Amino acid sequence: MKLFDGGRAPNPRRVRVFLAEKGIEVPLVPVDMGALEHKGETVSSRNPLRRLPVLELDDGTILTESVAICRYFEELHPEPALFGKGALGKALVEMWQRRMELNLMLPVAFAFRHIHPAMKEWEVPQIPEWGEANKPKAIGFLRLLDRELAGRPFVAGDAYSIADITGMIAVDFMKPARIQVPPECTNVLRWHGEVSSRPSAAA
Amino acid sequence: MKLFDGGRAPNPRRVRVFLAEKGIEVPLVPVDMGALEHKGETVSSRNPLRRLPVLELDDGTILTESVAICRYFEELHPEPALFGKGALGKALVEMWQRRMELNLMLPVAFAFRHIHPAMKEWEVPQIPEWGEANKPKAIGFLRLLDRELAGRPFVAGDAYSIADITGMIAVDFMKPARIQVPPECTNVLRWHGEVSSRPSAAA
Repeated sequence: MKLFDGGRAPNPRRVRVFLAEKGIEVPLVPVDMGALEHKGETVSSRNPLRRLPVLELDDGTILTESVAICRYFEELHPEPALFGKGALGKALVEMWQRRMELNLMLPVAFAFRHIHPAMKEWEVPQIPEWGEANKPKAIGFLRLLDRELAGRPFVAGDAYSIADITGMIAVDFMKPARIQVPPECTNVLRWHGEVSSRPSAAA
Repeated sequence: MKLFDGGRAPNPRRVRVFLAEKGIEVPLVPVDMGALEHKGETVSSRNPLRRLPVLELDDGTILTESVAICRYFEELHPEPALFGKGALGKALVEMWQRRMELNLMLPVAFAFRHIHPAMKEWEVPQIPEWGEANKPKAIGFLRLLDRELAGRPFVAGDAYSIADITGMIAVDFMKPARIQVPPECTNVLRWHGEVSSRPSAAA
């Protein structure tokens, strides 16, 4: 088994943090996304969408999509449960994982890719108006999240989950996207500080 | 238990088709999205994101996000398995479900919401250039999907899954978004015809 890894990019990091929380070690094959190596043969022969990370099993089976790779490891190593426990627990983690992804990670990614000068060759056409339109979406969702986090330690409840991983990395991604957490969102800032201080955050 | 339903919109339909495949009946509460009723108190008090569908359990617990609602029912009624079986089977369904969503459903939705005149008040600001930029993304993914479907009956393998539901509804959504399946994508057309002829498709 080997994991084709993309370094600092948000999605590869999601899987590395997940594996660190599980205590699972998988051999990494570094791919230099800055040098556009993910557009080359090594990745595109394994993932026609030419995105990272890519997990290759020993029999050659390919798994892509960060959350699908994480789910594979969750099924093989159920503890600690990062996708929730029980029907309702699993559904609530899925709900929050998707909310973090669709309402925070995605708007932040659009703001970064459609505004940042370094993304001009990655995102064609780059549409700054669309990037700007996403900044208030991200901020609006953070205000909603702040109200939720007033009543519980983690995004999906009392236990750390994949929704916290997606959320932490989305907030970190706000820096290059030049969006700030509103200072009055004290619960978001408290939560982000806590999840960022876990050893897994350095993965 | 009751399901606040949004009629013809793609996400409410995803859950109805899923329930029909499972043979589960849940009392529906119709919400008229055409009259913007999902922006009103009934929905916003249950889902601050003001989106449908919303599942309310008998104890008042709220579940939102179509895929999270589907997963809740999958856990309670595992057969027929629509999220895959076994670690690898579940991961492959998740991979394809996400590919269909991020590379087809989402671009089609952006094309619809940013170009269609009826969406002017829904999507503010409406950015036609962004809508147009998404059409080739959807078409490009359909060509990839066509090559995949040359070798198997369903999106994620030999069994019908939630990835087929998302895919079927994304293709149907192409009509109001004014995008056509390229006629040379004969495998996509064959697959879409087959999944559309299942009784669940009428849900």
